[in-house]
Amino acid sequence: MAELSAQIKLAQKLRLKKFRAEFGLFLAEGLRLCEMAPDAEIKFGFYTPDFLASERAIQLVGRLKKIVTMQEISEAAFEKISETKTPQGILLVMRQKLSAPEEVFTKKLIVALDAVHDAGNLGTILRTAEAFSCGVVLLDDSADAFNSKVVRASMGALFNLALTKMPRAEFLALARSSGAEILAAALDSAAEIYFEQDFTKKVAVVFGSEAAGVSPEILGAARKIYIPMSGRAESLNVSAAAAIVISEAVRQRKKFF
Amino acid sequence: MAELSAQIKLAQKLRLKKFRAEFGLFLAEGLRLCEMAPDAEIKFGFYTPDFLASERAIQLVGRLKKIVTMQEISEAAFEKISETKTPQGILLVMRQKLSAPEEVFTKKLIVALDAVHDAGNLGTILRTAEAFSCGVVLLDDSADAFNSKVVRASMGALFNLALTKMPRAEFLALARSSGAEILAAALDSAAEIYFEQDFTKKVAVVFGSEAAGVSPEILGAARKIYIPMSGRAESLNVSAAAAIVISEAVRQRKKFF
Repeated sequence: MAELSAQIKLAQKLRLKKFRAEFGLFLAEGLRLCEMAPDAEIKFGFYTPDFLASERAIQLVGRLKKIVTMQEISEAAFEKISETKTPQGILLVMRQKLSAPEEVFTKKLIVALDAVHDAGNLGTILRTAEAFSCGVVLLDDSADAFNSKVVRASMGALFNLALTKMPRAEFLALARSSGAEILAAALDSAAEIYFEQDFTKKVAVVFGSEAAGVSPEILGAARKIYIPMSGRAESLNVSAAAAIVISEAVRQRKKFF
Repeated sequence: MAELSAQIKLAQKLRLKKFRAEFGLFLAEGLRLCEMAPDAEIKFGFYTPDFLASERAIQLVGRLKKIVTMQEISEAAFEKISETKTPQGILLVMRQKLSAPEEVFTKKLIVALDAVHDAGNLGTILRTAEAFSCGVVLLDDSADAFNSKVVRASMGALFNLALTKMPRAEFLALARSSGAEILAAALDSAAEIYFEQDFTKKVAVVFGSEAAGVSPEILGAARKIYIPMSGRAESLNVSAAAAIVISEAVRQRKKFF
């Protein structure tokens, strides 16, 4: 019981970025995400009696019990850990895993996020990047990729993605040494139309926050690109902008890397 | 005071879809959205004393006061209407305005949403559609476009968009009579790659919910397209998928309609 109580307390703490960083752990919640979780990164988990209502749920818990400690807890205890409004009743405590920077830079298309704060947008971009086999670099001040809202919005992409984080200066140095051209999404008059770029070569594309855009440090070292719009909108959602540029790169390359 | 109290009660009711539909009204909240709101659709509004902290806010309230009743209410009263965690302190009650179906079908690119339930995704799609001057049709069972989360995620696009709603059968009939080819995002083996479609002609593209996809009624009448992916992801976020297809159509047309 002492151990169970300690595990519940640890899981509760992981709702805060500070403790996720301190322990190098995070929470994955819900049937689908827990099914996708790689065995090697699972530390332990919880489920509620009600979760075991489907054959699929029973199979999942059975499989997880063979590799880690899975404890049944009450709905009330579960709700104290869960970050969803209507919890499904399964949750894993997982080890954070980032890729080595060198591994990310072996990708032919690298997406870098410069202070993208919105968790939903970050998760959606991770999902898009994984779907098209991009590497992803989180630069300073971006949202925590292990925030549960990011994890959920990524739909498990986080588990399979070549993802790393680093300071801006290191990103610029690695992009150059790996032979990637640096492009940055911008709105200024010096920017070039995104689909007129040559995406058949290796590129690293940087997207900034919707409020502030890409930082001057990156903009000064990048070729600026923009997405031409015809409506009254001043800009696109950053996850829509990323999807547009990434898919154009893939379209140009035709075969799917 | 009696009128103020009635207006506050009405605004509170508009947080529910049922009352938005009954009264044909909705809520627009926050400095930027209220700045973008078209005069003709504003009914009345509220602000808090703290909102008037910036010159921009004072100007906005001053301008609004010339056209409608704008009442200063306490932070406590404001919080009872507001649907944001940290309210900015300005909110308008607005008339719902949809475009005539015929107007939407004059667009060369029409985006139809078939039971897209997620408010954030719907708002992001409306924003993307407006940025590229598409018409938008909401088919049966889609989220309410006047839900405040949709309004916020659309970043004001809702105010400028050629948007309408109708049953599926009517959409199919109007698409045909207006000469639009019907495309539907699908995942099945009979689907064709999206960027191999000819988007220089008039098209109506249908996107379905992430869980269920496009309904059989539409699929049976459409040419199926898909976005080829290379990662382990089974699908993309629907707002990312819509951005990819819409931007490819625009790219093919080159000049911006």
